[in-house]
Amino acid sequence: MLARLVRQRIEALIPPGWAKLAELAQRLQAETRARLPDVVARRRALERVFTGPAAELAIAGREAEAEAAYRAELNAPGSATGFVTLVGAGPGAADLASLRALRLLGEADVIVHDRLGTAEVLALARRDAHRIDVGKTQGNHTMPQAEINALLIGLAREGKRVVRLKGGDPFVFGRGGEEFDALRAAGIACAVVPGITAALACAASAGVPLTHRDRAHAVTFVTAHRRRPDLGIDYAGLLRPGVTLAIYMGLASIARLRDELDQAGYDTAIMAVLIENGGTPEARVLRGTLAELAAQAAAWSQGGPALILLGGAAG
Amino acid sequence: MLARLVRQRIEALIPPGWAKLAELAQRLQAETRARLPDVVARRRALERVFTGPAAELAIAGREAEAEAAYRAELNAPGSATGFVTLVGAGPGAADLASLRALRLLGEADVIVHDRLGTAEVLALARRDAHRIDVGKTQGNHTMPQAEINALLIGLAREGKRVVRLKGGDPFVFGRGGEEFDALRAAGIACAVVPGITAALACAASAGVPLTHRDRAHAVTFVTAHRRRPDLGIDYAGLLRPGVTLAIYMGLASIARLRDELDQAGYDTAIMAVLIENGGTPEARVLRGTLAELAAQAAAWSQGGPALILLGGAAG
Repeated sequence: MLARLVRQRIEALIPPGWAKLAELAQRLQAETRARLPDVVARRRALERVFTGPAAELAIAGREAEAEAAYRAELNAPGSATGFVTLVGAGPGAADLASLRALRLLGEADVIVHDRLGTAEVLALARRDAHRIDVGKTQGNHTMPQAEINALLIGLAREGKRVVRLKGGDPFVFGRGGEEFDALRAAGIACAVVPGITAALACAASAGVPLTHRDRAHAVTFVTAHRRRPDLGIDYAGLLRPGVTLAIYMGLASIARLRDELDQAGYDTAIMAVLIENGGTPEARVLRGTLAELAAQAAAWSQGGPALILLGGAAG
Repeated sequence: MLARLVRQRIEALIPPGWAKLAELAQRLQAETRARLPDVVARRRALERVFTGPAAELAIAGREAEAEAAYRAELNAPGSATGFVTLVGAGPGAADLASLRALRLLGEADVIVHDRLGTAEVLALARRDAHRIDVGKTQGNHTMPQAEINALLIGLAREGKRVVRLKGGDPFVFGRGGEEFDALRAAGIACAVVPGITAALACAASAGVPLTHRDRAHAVTFVTAHRRRPDLGIDYAGLLRPGVTLAIYMGLASIARLRDELDQAGYDTAIMAVLIENGGTPEARVLRGTLAELAAQAAAWSQGGPALILLGGAAG
């Protein structure tokens, strides 16, 4: 019985197109041996074939193009140019990563990763992939952004298959937009794999919907961490009727949030929810008025990433 | 080489805790045979054990509790109460579903699903699971929401493991909040598995970040579909400086959006992006001013779900 469940999982994970890839490999087996008699060279070429454009084309059902890409690798091994995929790891729990993210992690030559929320997902990556920790934790980089951009461009120019692994979603508070722009400006092929961003994971952990037909027709994600901390965020302007507010890096901003709403004439007895480590087995939830949470948050926190929900459906 | 890649995927998919579950099954094998001599009854009981609370506890490392739950099933087969999980299927492409979503689909007795964006993910579900199509397409239900709620409650009371599969994320424009409230009010155990909501998938497909350090410190998701269509949405109020607006069900609302912004004194030559079937291989992107897109959208669309990005980083 357990074996049957294991088999079901396996079936679910292998893309149907891989059967086509296996057929193609069989059809070109003699040609491959003749072209690359050295075992080590052949193994390297085949690995590039099975994790490069030929595989993606076969999986997409474009068989003639897949065969052409396969032959290109046999005729000029290693000549293919590199590419970068910005991959969202999701909120931290490995099983909230997508199949596409895991596939790319299994095929990468190099993984350039943040520190925050990527450790569990990273454990599922190919063991012999080169890993580079650029050390991003809650808004702080060990490596400046410009250096990260240059690193990605340099690796791709060496012909590497690069995964840039980011916590949550690459295009929500992850500076993915800056990396995408830099890669595009440098002429590097770049794709983006979305991920489950913290607001979605925290809402699920807390059982608080972000929208609701009767109470919230919109949800706004905002962060306190910005390049110019001197420019305050107009929380009072964002907290409109029928809008749920999800505030990333919530612990750092809860006191200022309370003060700003107080000054704007809002009642700080508004109900709010503070969620730490949302989406993981370590998720913790604190409910109360905004004033209560602002007073208790620092003592309550165990240091994990935290998010605030208030207004709209969070009431 | 292909076999090695297959093996890597398999390792990534099986939770480490399943080894503990297998050990437990072996330890209790003689006891299981003695307690349930009939092969069919034993197989059914074991399937419930391997996909019920005992498995979840073993996977979580709570071995003593797992053994107790295992024995409870042997002593009173089928007595466990049912539960409902609201599962986000993501934007439609099967490989953008999470591992957790796929595991639950592989263990469900019954899958209650929408029509919009769930077909590919549903194909990965257990073949013998009972499927109920409640027919939700772009905001319209074949089955009224109150009947869906009653259906979920009834199935759980029959002891079924129910997956409520929803396109995107259950708590973003999916009425998941209403279902969660109804289940909780009825005393049914209910968990939520977040999913990649359309705005994230569309941003990735179009290469348009939702936030950007220099251009957008916030992103707002809004939909035109609401219970009371007579109440207009204040698009002009939501479109603030530094905020990217993601408008779900974009095709239905683009003309009204243009008119409202025009009347509020905004320039409708603002740049916007319209994305259809975001996150899937059929993704299509139309860029232009809001006025241009409003004029072209109906003729351009091929009928898939569409989303508009404008303001903030979309400029």
